[in-house]
Amino acid sequence: MAASTVGPEIEKLIQALSRLPGLGPRSARRAALVLIKKKETLLVPLANAAREAAEAAKVCSVCGNIDSRDPCSVCADPARDPSTIVVVEDVGDLWALERAAATKARYHVLGGVLAPLDGIGPDDLAIDSLLGRAAAPEVTEIILAVNATVEGQTTAHYLTDELASCHVKVTRLAHGVPVGGELDYLDDGTLAAAMRARTAF
Amino acid sequence: MAASTVGPEIEKLIQALSRLPGLGPRSARRAALVLIKKKETLLVPLANAAREAAEAAKVCSVCGNIDSRDPCSVCADPARDPSTIVVVEDVGDLWALERAAATKARYHVLGGVLAPLDGIGPDDLAIDSLLGRAAAPEVTEIILAVNATVEGQTTAHYLTDELASCHVKVTRLAHGVPVGGELDYLDDGTLAAAMRARTAF
Repeated sequence: MAASTVGPEIEKLIQALSRLPGLGPRSARRAALVLIKKKETLLVPLANAAREAAEAAKVCSVCGNIDSRDPCSVCADPARDPSTIVVVEDVGDLWALERAAATKARYHVLGGVLAPLDGIGPDDLAIDSLLGRAAAPEVTEIILAVNATVEGQTTAHYLTDELASCHVKVTRLAHGVPVGGELDYLDDGTLAAAMRARTAF
Repeated sequence: MAASTVGPEIEKLIQALSRLPGLGPRSARRAALVLIKKKETLLVPLANAAREAAEAAKVCSVCGNIDSRDPCSVCADPARDPSTIVVVEDVGDLWALERAAATKARYHVLGGVLAPLDGIGPDDLAIDSLLGRAAAPEVTEIILAVNATVEGQTTAHYLTDELASCHVKVTRLAHGVPVGGELDYLDDGTLAAAMRARTAF
């Protein structure tokens, strides 16, 4: 962008927007223009929301969730089942399970998966704290809700070995046909897994 | 999103991001997570940039450009050719021409195109101010750099009629093969226009 076209404040907004995942330089410029044109309804609210979120957001010291309180609202909720911990790779996965209302258990965010080629080993993930939580007497089940990728499954196997000494049941999410999915579009591995795990109708 | 998952500050950030063009609800959540995780390098700079842009951004009272000064840096630049005015639909088009360094002339932003079906008539566009600028003695050429859409071309014809009394030369951008474009992928209208306007090699 030629320096003569936009002022430095607008250029900085475009730069900040272009670092968002999903927005490239061109869409960042388009977004900046829309924001500036609707200053009172879009840009000022975004500035306030970003400032307030920066002040409020905390990482939960128990489970690793991101919330405006610590412990997070899931960990602090007395209605949550303390006997089960759902292990997820990332906060986004936790939010997805919460949106689906898939469980009333508590969570543990690993912060990634084992990836030796990228130099990510067990010490880089929140595994020690998971083992500590799993050793608590009230915990009876650990659900490994990691992604069904090679790294995710490797991490699941590693965690299963580590959790062997904790006297907890270790389970994982079912593989199968997605709800609404069409068989013709599914990969062989999913179809074979769904066939093996077939249930009575 | 269940209210129990994220605090209201984070929810507000997701809402503000989801109003950006190019970001839906899902990518807004993903963007919010990335921003919060990289609070110091992404979220705080975005909050500051949005606040500063909201304070600084102004619409140029001469041409309609958006800049942090009024008159904008293009209108205020004495090196710009005052004899020619490039008419564009939107500020984004002005920025695109500036990035391409396509002209040393000044600009005039219409703020849209004539669209009777959407209720957008001449009074909704910055046409009166364009006629005022075109009547100035130093102005000799008006370049209609509107989009090559039906509405854009309708607007161009309307402006040509309106400008007839101003004793200026009215020109428009050339139609033709885009630089780097492949003939096989071009539409018939573009190919026919490029053939009609062929030039000596």
